[in-house]
Amino acid sequence: MKRPILAILLIILSAATTRLPQVAESAAAPRPTNFVVIFCDDLGYGDLGSFGNPTIRTPHLDRMAAEGQRWTSFYAADSVCTPSRAALLTSRLPIRTGMYSDTRRVLFPDSKGGLPASEITIAEILKRRGYATAAVGKWHLGYQPEHLPMRHGFDSYFGIPYSNDMDFVGQNVPADERRRRMMDPKVEYWNVPLMRGEQVVERPAEQTTLTRRYTDEAVNFVKANRQRPFFLYLAHSMPHMPLFRSKEFAGRSQRGLYGDVIEELDANVGRLLDTLRQLKLDRNTMVVFTSDNGPWMLFNEQGGTAGLLRGAKGGTFEGGMREPTIIWHPGTIRPGVVTELGSTLDLLPTFAKIVGEPLPADRPLDGHDLTPVLHASGGSGKSPRQTMFYWRGSKLYAVRHGAFKAHFITRSEYGTDQPVEHDPPLLYNLDEDAAEKYNIAAMHPEVIARIRQIATAHRASITPVENQLDKR
Amino acid sequence: MKRPILAILLIILSAATTRLPQVAESAAAPRPTNFVVIFCDDLGYGDLGSFGNPTIRTPHLDRMAAEGQRWTSFYAADSVCTPSRAALLTSRLPIRTGMYSDTRRVLFPDSKGGLPASEITIAEILKRRGYATAAVGKWHLGYQPEHLPMRHGFDSYFGIPYSNDMDFVGQNVPADERRRRMMDPKVEYWNVPLMRGEQVVERPAEQTTLTRRYTDEAVNFVKANRQRPFFLYLAHSMPHMPLFRSKEFAGRSQRGLYGDVIEELDANVGRLLDTLRQLKLDRNTMVVFTSDNGPWMLFNEQGGTAGLLRGAKGGTFEGGMREPTIIWHPGTIRPGVVTELGSTLDLLPTFAKIVGEPLPADRPLDGHDLTPVLHASGGSGKSPRQTMFYWRGSKLYAVRHGAFKAHFITRSEYGTDQPVEHDPPLLYNLDEDAAEKYNIAAMHPEVIARIRQIATAHRASITPVENQLDKR
Repeated sequence: MKRPILAILLIILSAATTRLPQVAESAAAPRPTNFVVIFCDDLGYGDLGSFGNPTIRTPHLDRMAAEGQRWTSFYAADSVCTPSRAALLTSRLPIRTGMYSDTRRVLFPDSKGGLPASEITIAEILKRRGYATAAVGKWHLGYQPEHLPMRHGFDSYFGIPYSNDMDFVGQNVPADERRRRMMDPKVEYWNVPLMRGEQVVERPAEQTTLTRRYTDEAVNFVKANRQRPFFLYLAHSMPHMPLFRSKEFAGRSQRGLYGDVIEELDANVGRLLDTLRQLKLDRNTMVVFTSDNGPWMLFNEQGGTAGLLRGAKGGTFEGGMREPTIIWHPGTIRPGVVTELGSTLDLLPTFAKIVGEPLPADRPLDGHDLTPVLHASGGSGKSPRQTMFYWRGSKLYAVRHGAFKAHFITRSEYGTDQPVEHDPPLLYNLDEDAAEKYNIAAMHPEVIARIRQIATAHRASITPVENQLDKR
Repeated sequence: MKRPILAILLIILSAATTRLPQVAESAAAPRPTNFVVIFCDDLGYGDLGSFGNPTIRTPHLDRMAAEGQRWTSFYAADSVCTPSRAALLTSRLPIRTGMYSDTRRVLFPDSKGGLPASEITIAEILKRRGYATAAVGKWHLGYQPEHLPMRHGFDSYFGIPYSNDMDFVGQNVPADERRRRMMDPKVEYWNVPLMRGEQVVERPAEQTTLTRRYTDEAVNFVKANRQRPFFLYLAHSMPHMPLFRSKEFAGRSQRGLYGDVIEELDANVGRLLDTLRQLKLDRNTMVVFTSDNGPWMLFNEQGGTAGLLRGAKGGTFEGGMREPTIIWHPGTIRPGVVTELGSTLDLLPTFAKIVGEPLPADRPLDGHDLTPVLHASGGSGKSPRQTMFYWRGSKLYAVRHGAFKAHFITRSEYGTDQPVEHDPPLLYNLDEDAAEKYNIAAMHPEVIARIRQIATAHRASITPVENQLDKR
């Protein structure tokens, strides 16, 4: 009975705070926390300087990491784009929302499905507290009008509605020429739309300037909302193939085209953080930087690197889902390296906790409130997340519990091979063997038994829902 | 004709400086630069937090990296211990000094060979300038009296003369039990001597406290020589298998025994840097942290990780020789990340340049003066090193020139396989593909031709010398 009273008190307190006139920037009255999620597309675990990349220079992100928390075991909720994004915004695994598929894996321009209206997004949660909300960048949760961002709690939208390699122009182009165009791209090879709100405002999207224009949009949104709380979901289209960067960054990186793209992203993260600093919003804004899945390995050096991790985008080894993640909130988050588990699934419960908004009570969520870690000194807090589930379509491929990860099924990321079931599962100690090299199943039957129990209970919690990704 | 005059002027200036009485710690008169080389054993490229390790915590080294230069393409001169160490101290490739072998690969307790007296070490160079010199830790350049550190320019020595897994006790112990002992080690399994000067002072060496005792020795040496210039060569025995750490670090790391060992090394680097700070020597001491070769992969998770790099100790892919390297000299070295090439071969010429001592003119050296990079802002300097040679025993396996690396021969690190010759060589662009995944030989015949020329000229510069490592 205590929690509702506390929640009501927090609501009153928060509402009072947000309505207080801002007498002076330096007033001591606590201001509500703004939230910014910078979500990259196909960024690998090893693609930032602070995560060990030898040639890509990311000074702005490295500074952000030094000032905030660098999370080394932070997971996207899926290894491909659409399911991963649906899970971030709803704190629910794709298997619960219908945002998965065993065949197409993601939404395409001809898809009729999308994120159901019944799902509750971070934007909708925060709107209840009076937040201004904006989605900027790649959406990929449905191209039908009823699935677009402004139907899911966002006040505005500016971006491309699906992946930047869709709408390829020229159905009869042979495979090798398609590949060549992918690796030596021109804007006109793809007929990707750029939207504002629910209107297409440019087609094909001038992709070379998207990273900069998305950031312009983000900066303008922050400036326009400096007097009220805001939530910004900035989902960059890069570094998803085909790779584009502005002229200013062409040839700048020692790492080639891929490095140019990351260095432009880095510089634009710097621009956004500088805006927050200049507006004196940095001390009441939490910024999360992460990505939707691991690097895409089909295009050689034009894909990123998962660093020491095994696997890549599309698969359930660590490289497919563990992401280089930085969480920044000067004065509130104590700087440090966090080796505890976290996930994009945890953002909604964490933000809800911070603003004092109760979680939806009518449905299972898969996230945890990470504030015990965010507010602990030097990354010393214990994460409420002890388990990570690695789904691929309709099948639970692997489960991590504590240091141990059991693979019940494995399969190559994008190969034509069939899934291989393992009984006993492959077992790795990720604390000691993050690269998943040394199967220790024979040494730990009790760990396997425990993970089997967890997997069984988890599967039992899933209620079948209508599949959205196979609808055309 | 200008250089000799400049050198003489520098000698006079430097000599005058070293003889000046230290009136006060804060006196403005420039003091000669002290040099400390902290050399680990089998540390992998991906084993430090600042080089992307997800679970090993290295806050002292990370701080050192943030205050100094983090070098991401810095090479040991060989992929195994003895040749690598000989090259560091002499700035000469093992093929020139006889410190290589196609069979045993390193020196053993029964070896009669060692670093020839005719070789000139960093210690000997710096002694000419009045430096106090100390070798602490693993030597591995000859166990016969004439090969020990004090015959090579060091005023003192404290450490084990070869690897900590040599002198295994029990010749008849079966292979699986030997392996078990390696992975669950007790001090008494090995009869390794600990020496002071040229006397054995403890046998078997109490290995659990070596990291701490080596550092004690180093700290005492620094304190004793605070009024004069010094060179400290601190060659830790860890993390070479068998892994030992003190009780204080037992079970401390999330990364298991290997992590405990690295975290104890990190804490002891912190102790040494703190000593320099307390004595106000930090601003006139250059500290180089690196390792002799990549991680030893024969013992699963008890070996380190090369991060994104391919290969390991014993081989000529990057993981065998590229090392996590930090160079620190507050107030002189501008902080930054350096992606230019460097090598342990370059330390002697760099130190000689800084003290104004001419290089030996009667022999070829393989090093370069790195001061143009050390003194440039934010790691922006251009390295005089454009080429790296990857020898294995008597054969040149690979050559890096600029971004490109050509493998003429490959072979597994420790397997029973035979060398495989490649014509054309395998070619990788290490700037864009540090993991050596994508052979681009077919696309760059002109690069291969250039590297062939470089290899031919390099081989022609080698004069046959007596082999030291096969002598028993």
